[in-house]
Amino acid sequence: MALTVGVLGGGQLARMMIPAAVALGIELRVLAESEGESARLATTSVGDTRDPDVLLAFARDVDAITFDHEHVPQEALAALVDAGIAVRPGPAALAHAQDKSLMRARLSDLGVPVPDWRPVTDAGDLAAFLGDHGGRAVLKTARGGYDGKGVRVVSDPAEAEDWLASGQPLLVEELVGFRRELAQSVARRPSGGIVAWPLVESVQRRGVCAEVIAPAPSSSGRLADEASAIAHTIAERLDVTGVLAVELFETDDGRLLVNELAMRPHNTGHWTIDGATTSQFEQHLRAVLDLPLGSTDPHREWAVMVNVLGGPPEGTVADRYPRALTAHPAVKVHEYGKAPRPGRKVGHVTAIGDDLDSVVRQARDAAALLGAE
Amino acid sequence: MALTVGVLGGGQLARMMIPAAVALGIELRVLAESEGESARLATTSVGDTRDPDVLLAFARDVDAITFDHEHVPQEALAALVDAGIAVRPGPAALAHAQDKSLMRARLSDLGVPVPDWRPVTDAGDLAAFLGDHGGRAVLKTARGGYDGKGVRVVSDPAEAEDWLASGQPLLVEELVGFRRELAQSVARRPSGGIVAWPLVESVQRRGVCAEVIAPAPSSSGRLADEASAIAHTIAERLDVTGVLAVELFETDDGRLLVNELAMRPHNTGHWTIDGATTSQFEQHLRAVLDLPLGSTDPHREWAVMVNVLGGPPEGTVADRYPRALTAHPAVKVHEYGKAPRPGRKVGHVTAIGDDLDSVVRQARDAAALLGAE
Repeated sequence: MALTVGVLGGGQLARMMIPAAVALGIELRVLAESEGESARLATTSVGDTRDPDVLLAFARDVDAITFDHEHVPQEALAALVDAGIAVRPGPAALAHAQDKSLMRARLSDLGVPVPDWRPVTDAGDLAAFLGDHGGRAVLKTARGGYDGKGVRVVSDPAEAEDWLASGQPLLVEELVGFRRELAQSVARRPSGGIVAWPLVESVQRRGVCAEVIAPAPSSSGRLADEASAIAHTIAERLDVTGVLAVELFETDDGRLLVNELAMRPHNTGHWTIDGATTSQFEQHLRAVLDLPLGSTDPHREWAVMVNVLGGPPEGTVADRYPRALTAHPAVKVHEYGKAPRPGRKVGHVTAIGDDLDSVVRQARDAAALLGAE
Repeated sequence: MALTVGVLGGGQLARMMIPAAVALGIELRVLAESEGESARLATTSVGDTRDPDVLLAFARDVDAITFDHEHVPQEALAALVDAGIAVRPGPAALAHAQDKSLMRARLSDLGVPVPDWRPVTDAGDLAAFLGDHGGRAVLKTARGGYDGKGVRVVSDPAEAEDWLASGQPLLVEELVGFRRELAQSVARRPSGGIVAWPLVESVQRRGVCAEVIAPAPSSSGRLADEASAIAHTIAERLDVTGVLAVELFETDDGRLLVNELAMRPHNTGHWTIDGATTSQFEQHLRAVLDLPLGSTDPHREWAVMVNVLGGPPEGTVADRYPRALTAHPAVKVHEYGKAPRPGRKVGHVTAIGDDLDSVVRQARDAAALLGAE
C-alpha cells in the first residue's frame, strides 16, 4: 500500500507536488475546486474544500491531508481531526496563517519581532493608530488576502469606509521603512526535526512576488542566524508541520520584522526545485508523512527565480518556447497550465550558477520572453 | 491547447517523463498494457500497444507519439505514420533498436565499430563462427532481448538447440574482452540539433545495469570524443529523434565497440534527473516535440546512480524510507511503484558531489538500505 497524501486545493502548489510524489512513489490525491485546475493530473475529486462532507469523503484512506492554500475553514478541519485524520499542518497551527490578527498577537506573545499593529473595529481605532504613526499606515483584512489583495495603505479613516462597513475583521500596521523583503523557509516533521533552506531575498512588484534571489545577497552571519531563529521559533511554538515560509522585512535600521506566514510551499521557495538538493515540495510531502527530511544544500552559489506573468491574450507560454528555450538552454521553465490572464502568475523560471549577475540576467530575460513583461 | 505527447508503454520510463511534462506544461498521455503500471498517474488508455486500431485511437490529437519500450511492431507504427501522426523516433530508425542483426549490419556499413558478428540460421553457421573465434561466442536473439534476456554465451551449437529450433532470427558475436562498459547518450530533434551528455560508465551485474558513474572515470579526451562521435553518427545517419543511448565496450586494447542501442530514455541516463541541468526525460519530450534542446551540463563533478532491486516479499521500498532517508539526507530516491519481485528493478537512487568515493558510497549504501542487496 503506497503512502498517500491528500491535498486540499488544486492550484500550482499542488501541481508542483506531483514530481516529488512520482519520485518517492507517494500517491497524491488532489481535491480541486473545479475541473481543469493546475494540478489536474493528480486531481481525484472535484468539490468544495469548505464542505466537511466533501472533505471527509475525500480524506478516507489517506496517510495525511495537507494544503495547496489556507482557505479551508476551521470547522471543516475540525471534522477531519475528529475523524482521526492526520491534518498537517494542524488546524491550530494553520489558524495563524488564516488570520493575521491571531498571527500578530501570537508572535507578539512569543517575542518574535513584528511591525507595530492593532486590531481595528471602527474608524476611531484607525484614526488613533494613524495619529500615533505619522498619519499613514497599512490596513489589512485579517482573512483572505494574498498577492497584494486585502492590503491598503491609508492616511484617513474615510479611505477605509467600505471595509469598515463590511464588518470583516481588520488590523492596521505601521508602514515599515524597509531596505528589502526577505523570506526564510523551514520544514518540520511531526515527530520533531526542522531543516532550513538559505534565507532568500524576495523582490515584489505591485504587491506580488516577482523575483527571488537565493541566498539573499550579503545575508550571511547575523541576518541569516536571526531569520533562521525566528522561523525555528515559529515552527516549534506554533506546532507547524510541513513547510513554513516566513516573509520578513529587513528594516532601514537593520532589524528583521515578520510580515506574513505561509504553512505550505511558497512562491519564495520555488527556486528549490532546480536549485537545492531537496525541493520545498518534496520536503513538504516528507514532512507531512513524518518521513526523515532531506538536505537543503543548494547546487550552486546562486539561484534566481522569476515569475512568469500572463500576457496579452494571443498565445500561451508554450507558444513562446522556441524563442525562449533557444536563448536560454540552461534556464528551467515551469508552466502551470493556467489560462494566461494579464498579471496572473502562469509559471516561473529558475537559473542557477556561480555568477549572480549572469544568473539574474538569464532568469529575467527568459521570464520576459515567456510572459507579459 | 497544450502540447501533447502520447507514450506507448506504461513502465518506469514513461513514469519518469511525468515530472518533466508537469514542469513544461506538456500533456502526457500514456497507453499502458494493463491497469496499475508504473506510469499509472498519466495513463489515459489501457490496451495492446501492438494493435494498430488501439494505437490509432490513442494517437488522435497528440503532437507526437513516442515510446517507453521498443516492442511496438513496424506494421502498427506504419499505420500511425500513414495516418499523418508524428512518430518519434520514426519506424525506420526504431527498427535498429528492435532488431540487433539490422543494427549490426547498418552500423558496419556506416563504419561504426562493432564486435565481429554474423547472422545465424543453423548450427553450421554457429559452428563456423565458433571455430573462427576461439570456440566461445555470444549468441543473441535478434529481437526482444533486454536486461540479459535473449543473450547466451555458447561454446557448442548443441547449447543453442532450443533457439535454433524455434526459428527466431539469431546472431552471434565475438566474446569481447573489455575493461568496462560505457554509455553515451545524446538527444536529437527532427529539425536538427544534437546535444550530448557526458560519457558514463555502466557497471553490470548478472547482465543487468547495476550502477552508473557520470562521467566515466578517466574518460576525458580521446575516449569521450570517440564516444560522442559514434553517437552523433548513429543519431544523424539513422535519423533518430528523441534520446539515443549507445552502450559501448571499452576493449582491453582501448577501442570502443557499440554493444546495444536504445532510442528512448535509458537506465544509464537516470542520473541526469538529479545530476544534470536537463534530464534525459525532459530532453526526450523537448526533442520529440521539436523544441530547442536544453543544457546537458552536470550540477557537480560526479553523479552516481544505483538501481534498487526488489527484495524479499515482506515490505516495500517505502517501508525502508525511515532508515534510508535518515542515513542519506542528500541522496535522491526514485521509486517506480512496481511490485517488489526479487531481482526486479523497482527504483533507483542518485548521489552527486565533488568527491567520487563519497558519492559512490552514499549511493550504494542508500540503494542497499532500500532494496534487496
